[in-house]
Parts: sequence; C-alpha cells; structure tokens
Amino acid sequence: MAEAAVAAPDWRVSRWFNADAGLSLRELRGRVVFLHAFQMLCPACVQHAVPQSLKVAAAFASTDLAVVGLHTVFEHHHAMGPDALEVYLHENRIGYPVGVDAHRDDDPARHPLPLTMQAYAMQGTPTLLLVDRTGRLRRHTFGLVDDLRLGAEIATLLAEPRPEPDPR
Amino acid sequence: MAEAAVAAPDWRVSRWFNADAGLSLRELRGRVVFLHAFQMLCPACVQHAVPQSLKVAAAFASTDLAVVGLHTVFEHHHAMGPDALEVYLHENRIGYPVGVDAHRDDDPARHPLPLTMQAYAMQGTPTLLLVDRTGRLRRHTFGLVDDLRLGAEIATLLAEPRPEPDPR
Amino acid sequence: MAEAAVAAPDWRVSRWFNADAGLSLRELRGRVVFLHAFQMLCPACVQHAVPQSLKVAAAFASTDLAVVGLHTVFEHHHAMGPDALEVYLHENRIGYPVGVDAHRDDDPARHPLPLTMQAYAMQGTPTLLLVDRTGRLRRHTFGLVDDLRLGAEIATLLAEPRPEPDPR
Amino acid sequence: MAEAAVAAPDWRVSRWFNADAGLSLRELRGRVVFLHAFQMLCPACVQHAVPQSLKVAAAFASTDLAVVGLHTVFEHHHAMGPDALEVYLHENRIGYPVGVDAHRDDDPARHPLPLTMQAYAMQGTPTLLLVDRTGRLRRHTFGLVDDLRLGAEIATLLAEPRPEPDPR
Repeated sequence: MAEAAVAAPDWRVSRWFNADAGLSLRELRGRVVFLHAFQMLCPACVQHAVPQSLKVAAAFASTDLAVVGLHTVFEHHHAMGPDALEVYLHENRIGYPVGVDAHRDDDPARHPLPLTMQAYAMQGTPTLLLVDRTGRLRRHTFGLVDDLRLGAEIATLLAEPRPEPDPR
Repeated sequence: MAEAAVAAPDWRVSRWFNADAGLSLRELRGRVVFLHAFQMLCPACVQHAVPQSLKVAAAFASTDLAVVGLHTVFEHHHAMGPDALEVYLHENRIGYPVGVDAHRDDDPARHPLPLTMQAYAMQGTPTLLLVDRTGRLRRHTFGLVDDLRLGAEIATLLAEPRPEPDPR
Repeated sequence: MAEAAVAAPDWRVSRWFNADAGLSLRELRGRVVFLHAFQMLCPACVQHAVPQSLKVAAAFASTDLAVVGLHTVFEHHHAMGPDALEVYLHENRIGYPVGVDAHRDDDPARHPLPLTMQAYAMQGTPTLLLVDRTGRLRRHTFGLVDDLRLGAEIATLLAEPRPEPDPR
Repeated sequence: MAEAAVAAPDWRVSRWFNADAGLSLRELRGRVVFLHAFQMLCPACVQHAVPQSLKVAAAFASTDLAVVGLHTVFEHHHAMGPDALEVYLHENRIGYPVGVDAHRDDDPARHPLPLTMQAYAMQGTPTLLLVDRTGRLRRHTFGLVDDLRLGAEIATLLAEPRPEPDPR
C-alpha cells in the first residue's frame, strides 16, 4: 500500500442498487471502503473478482467495512444496462450497494468512458480500490489480488484509528 | 452413461452465432456432439461450465468432436437477448457454434421455457449433453461434471465406430 | 477469535531446524506468532496447511510476524524422525524455524503423544495457533482455515499495541 | 501421444505393496497400464500427482485399467525407505499396487539412480507413463498433465482392441 496516499475522489453514480440514491464516499468517512469496479460481462470479473467480493462481504460482515460495487461500463453499453445489471445482481445474490458509474450527459454513445472510471484513471476491469477511514486511497489495483494479502490489507486498515469527526 | 440410449431430439434454434443458419443435429450425424446448454447470467454457467466447454474445445480440437453451445433462456429474457449474447461470446472468445434456443411463437413472455429445453426435459442450466456418432443421447447432466470423467467419456464416444452412411 | 484468551503455554522442543536451540515463545513476546503444527506424512498438512504457511511467511515477510512450524508426531514415529524431517524441509524450501515436538523421556514408543501437543490439547494435525503480542492464545484450530480470514486475523493481531517491556 | 511408440521396458522392483511379488508389465499385457513414478517427499508428487492418480483409480475402477505406482527414489534414500513408504501409502489410502524401484546391488549409496528410472530415462518425479494393451509406451511425461486430456488419453487407449493372445 502506498505511503503517501491521495484523497479518494467521490464516485459519480447514475443509479444505485441495494442503497439509497445519495450514497457517497463522504458519507462513509470514518469507515474503510472496499470498492470493486466491474462489468457484468467481463470474464475475469465474473469468474474471480465478484466471487471474491462476496467472500469479503461475508468475512467482514461483523466489522464496519463498507463493501461497494461500481458498474463501470466502458464498452458494449447496450448489453450491460441497468436492467441487465439488476438481473446479474439478483442471480449472484449480491446484497451490498452497487452503483452504476455515470456517463457524461447520460450519453455513453458519445462519452463511452464513465466518469468515476476517469476520475480514478482506472485501466479497466476488474479494479480494486481500498479507501481508509480518513478517505485516502490506499490501494488501486487493476486485475486480481491474492486472498491472503487482501484479507491482511483490509484488516490493517480496519485497525487504524477513526478520524476526529468533521467540524462541519 | 446409460446403456439404452434414446435418439437425441434435434434442437430448435432461432438464431446461430459462429455457424450457418441451418446447423442441425442430423447434419452432424457421424460425429460425437458435446452440447452445453447455458444462460449468460447463470453463475454456475459462467464460472464453471463455459470455461470447461472452452477447455473441451481446445483439448479435442484435433478430433472430429462437435462442440455446440445452446443459449437456453428460461428467465430474465429481457437481459439475455441475442445482442447481449453476442457480447458475451465475444468477451469470452467463444468460437464454436452457439444457438439461441427458440421460444414458441418467438414470444418468451407468453412461453418462457424454450423449445429445445422442453424437448430434452432439461431441469435448468448448466446442462451437459453428449450425443454419440449414431445420434443417440448418451449423457444428460444438470450441473457440473468432473474434468477427468468428462475427458474419458468424450474419448470413449470418439472411439466408437462411425455408423454406415444413411441410405437416404 | 476468542474474547477471553488464555496464556499460550510454551513449547517443548527436542530439536530445532532453522533456529538456535533455545527459541522459546517467551523470547518472542511482543511479536505475533503464527504456529502451525503438522506431520510430514499427514496428507492435509502437506497438501494444504504447509503450502499455506509458506504463503503466510512470504505475505508477511515485511512485518514482525514470527512463523514457526512444530512437527507434532503422534503416530508412525519411525517414519517421521528428524532426519526425514530435514529432507522434507529442504524439499519444500521451508526457511522459517521448525521444532520437533518432544516426547517424554525422548521415548515415543512409550509416550506417543508429544508434550506440546498435550499442553495445547491438540486434536490432531494440521493445527493452527495464533499467539498475540502479549502471549495469549487467540486462535486454536484443528483443520484448515480460509486464506481471506487468516490474512485478516493475522493483520488484526499485528495491529494491536506491543505490550510494555517486561520489568524482569 | 507419439505415433511410433516403443515397447515399454519392464520394471525392476525390489518390493511390492498391495501386490504379489511377481507383478510384471508382461503379466499385464492386454490391459492399459497407468504407471506413475513418484517420491514420497517430492512436493509436486504429493500435492498433485498422487491425488490425481487416486482420482484416476476411482474414475476408471469399472474398467480394466491397471493403476500402478512406482517409488523411484533417486535422492535422500535414507528418508524414503520402504518402511516410510508403507506409512505414506497407508496415510494416503493408496490401495493399488506400488513397487519400490530397485537399485543396482541394492546399494543406493553407490548407485543412487534406480533401475527402472534409468531404463525409461526418466528426468525426475513425478513422471507419468501410459502403456497400451500391446505393451507399447504411448505417453511419457515429466511433470503434470491436465485432468481433461489425461482422462481422454486413458479412455482412448482403453478403447483400442486387445491384442491376440501371445502364442508362447
């Protein structure tokens, strides 16, 4: 994990599943956030990253870890719309919040790369992000991460002190 | 594999990918057919059965085994239409013929169970069918099959004699 | 992990590999100890627990985790003596300390259960023990543990504060 | 599998487990022989090749496939003697015949490479050999073989015709 971590930019989501519309990274400040960006028709996502995310959600269910999925569709938009995603989430029994990464002007034909994907400069899917209790980005990985190391990193972040409440 | 095998009914396909429109089981008579029925949003299919089918296609590429996929959509039809399937096949680099199991009157809303699925009395997806050189159904399994046994069964069928040419 | 953890009894070792003769749990006080008890001819040990222990040693190499193996032979003593163990450690490239669990009077024929195994009331092999920085036993599991949860538990213990130095 | 296969040389065994002393390849003529050469302290053997051999024995139990293990010890002889091997076979529930590859003059100290290993010019362990019904060597592989292809190869050999009885 990087020493000098930057503040994680908030996501831009056009629609949420399993969450209220306003869910934001700012709102989760104080908690560790496990954010996995995926596409429902990306083979490495469906074969490895999504099953691992479900395992993470189960293994850390008794902690205050926030598991969040982000559907970052940057190709084949017609086949991976929100209706199809809803079926995917149902079939895979995904109960944690999943947001649809928004496209500029809601127009993926003209702006195929979604906004959160751009804000994080993601290289593709699956991408794994870990945000610490203070809102800093501590891991950003394109591809797969080993279970043993992933479990250790999440627990390390969970053990860090909660920040002082925001003076706002 | 059953001793007294029945003739495998031909499939009913509304659209083919990676094949000409007329591909039929009758036309493949004389070859062994590995037929795997799947849905592109069924977790056990995409995590296990489809990767195994791709391995089968590669392992038996030098034989006359016919590998055929059948997209037997019996639920969530709106999310698994032919356009979405085309993306799925592209993303998973599936190069063998895949047919879309047809619905009566092309109307899945009124007739959700597709016709080939009904003809074979499939219980769900994934389903694996093996048809021998004479057109008889020799395996019909709902769920997953072990690689070692599957390789052995296919090779056993491949080693059986080709039938005499049809007099028609 | 148990809330009310007991002090971990020290081991009784008749011979060390990859360590000086005097290595003790007391000496490791202040560090987290990952202790895996195994037998070199136990199938679940060699197929799962030992490979996992090697992964733990690699994943936590930059931390102060102490990885220690304990050869707790309670059957077939003639086939798993120290000379055979030395070959096993060499072939599996195990570089962390491994102790041979001692038998009363150095006489496994009369006293087949080794002393550390008895002190911990182990049910068999593989057994996994986690000892925290203060010397308390925090996990004691007979059988296999999932990588994700294991990584998390070790990291959680590593994040706990070091105890005050012993006044002795 | 090679087109022009040579006759498989018979093994040289100093001791059998799970078989009578005289078991020979000649005696198995007419059957397909799956012969796996291993060492009980070789990591790739115990983690992969031996478990696969047990799966082969189970999957082909209803056929006339002969599964045979060969303990080809070429190093660390003191740690892998017949007494230790007996424990290994017991612990791993290996019920098929396993022979100890013989050393010249029964003197592994002077002649470390065992005789069958030399006769087959094996490169190491694990090594997999497949002998067809006529006694010809059809596969010789150092390392691991995929389950799907292995199942297919065994079944292909099983489907070949039995040779005419030897006139001798």
